[in-house]
Amino acid sequence: MSRFKLTLEYDGRAFQGWQRQKNGFSVQEALENAVHGFSGETVAVQGAGRTDAGVHATGQVAHVDLDKPMSIESLQNAINHHLRPHPVAVIRATQVADDFHARFSATRRHYLYRIINRRAPLVLEAGRAWHLPTMIEAEVMHEAGQRLIGKHDFTSFRSAACQSQSPVKTLDRITVRRVGDEIQIAVTARSFLHHQVRNIVGTLKMIGDNKWPVDRIEEVLAAQNRAAAGPTAPADGLYLTSVEY
Amino acid sequence: MSRFKLTLEYDGRAFQGWQRQKNGFSVQEALENAVHGFSGETVAVQGAGRTDAGVHATGQVAHVDLDKPMSIESLQNAINHHLRPHPVAVIRATQVADDFHARFSATRRHYLYRIINRRAPLVLEAGRAWHLPTMIEAEVMHEAGQRLIGKHDFTSFRSAACQSQSPVKTLDRITVRRVGDEIQIAVTARSFLHHQVRNIVGTLKMIGDNKWPVDRIEEVLAAQNRAAAGPTAPADGLYLTSVEY
Repeated sequence: MSRFKLTLEYDGRAFQGWQRQKNGFSVQEALENAVHGFSGETVAVQGAGRTDAGVHATGQVAHVDLDKPMSIESLQNAINHHLRPHPVAVIRATQVADDFHARFSATRRHYLYRIINRRAPLVLEAGRAWHLPTMIEAEVMHEAGQRLIGKHDFTSFRSAACQSQSPVKTLDRITVRRVGDEIQIAVTARSFLHHQVRNIVGTLKMIGDNKWPVDRIEEVLAAQNRAAAGPTAPADGLYLTSVEY
Repeated sequence: MSRFKLTLEYDGRAFQGWQRQKNGFSVQEALENAVHGFSGETVAVQGAGRTDAGVHATGQVAHVDLDKPMSIESLQNAINHHLRPHPVAVIRATQVADDFHARFSATRRHYLYRIINRRAPLVLEAGRAWHLPTMIEAEVMHEAGQRLIGKHDFTSFRSAACQSQSPVKTLDRITVRRVGDEIQIAVTARSFLHHQVRNIVGTLKMIGDNKWPVDRIEEVLAAQNRAAAGPTAPADGLYLTSVEY
């Protein structure tokens, strides 16, 4: 048996999220089917981040065990061939030690949230970014974001469906910057609560809109109440960009 | 009557090109229908570049004449509303003088051609870039490109269907650069022959592949024969990015 680490890109619109489930096709199922397709082996593919329906990835990481001896290159080509026509691909494959675990060995996860801030509806970026037609300010969003860095009880930013044992997480980094009519929000932590990034973005948007003052972010955090935060930003803008080990 | 300049973004995959035609839906038809939809006026929308089927735009320019008095903002919103659900939008609108002509007043057209150079199939960029799975060298492509700058007979890079009166064009600028696994080819000229950018890209690719030496670009140009150049690069990677007046 050999264990392989797979780095994955996918278009979240085609899937009911990462995780295998009864009501819909998942990225995990697509991968497990693809591996079975060329090896005949029934495998469980483990992923670093359980992305929701509509959430994209440019650097999701998964691992899989295979009995069949194969080169890295053949493995990548075989999986990609069998993944067609689903919009998911293995962009890198490496062999790893047997104790490597895509989910549990991860030390940092990086997400990017993209907002396109312009009057005109989205065309080339439809389904790939959050469209906000009225002007929002990236600077105040960045300032508010800095107040979330560190170890906190993130209950206010946690979805009701969250299965995490504790609402306490450590946010390592958050930056908000404007590049033309795009606002890019980059977030890093060891792990996240369910909907944490999208709820942070939805809250920062209230501040960028000047509906809420910057200081309110601290009240939201202290409230430890989901109702205190802003709405959940749509899945379209969210990308799992990389995972560190 | 007022004349309006419209800056347009579109996803070329949804259209049989810019120009109105019998066998397929065009960007021009979508715009003319949208204008009729809110104004009742039958208009001819003139575009700066007659992009082919599958070619995208982030900054196509068109003009249209309207009898109905409207603010710029209302016009943009009305056209965008009536363009739905087609993947084309007016990203900017301005009123211009009656002698402004989107096509004939243009002094420089800028195109970008995107290649994704990686083993894995395209996912998020499928249909939006040319996928080349084996490594190509941007540096030699750039070097070859510089030999095309200036006023030349571009017959070797001209499609058989080209309606231009003369094959002589002046190429102002061409740059080829690698950004990660993407190769970006930016090209500027007052005007282009039919398929000129895609035929240049297809030829540079032969050089980037090391199938042809850099010097061969001069022989291709001198041949004044389409058969001497490389194949036509696919439409997917081509974007009309801006037009100067």
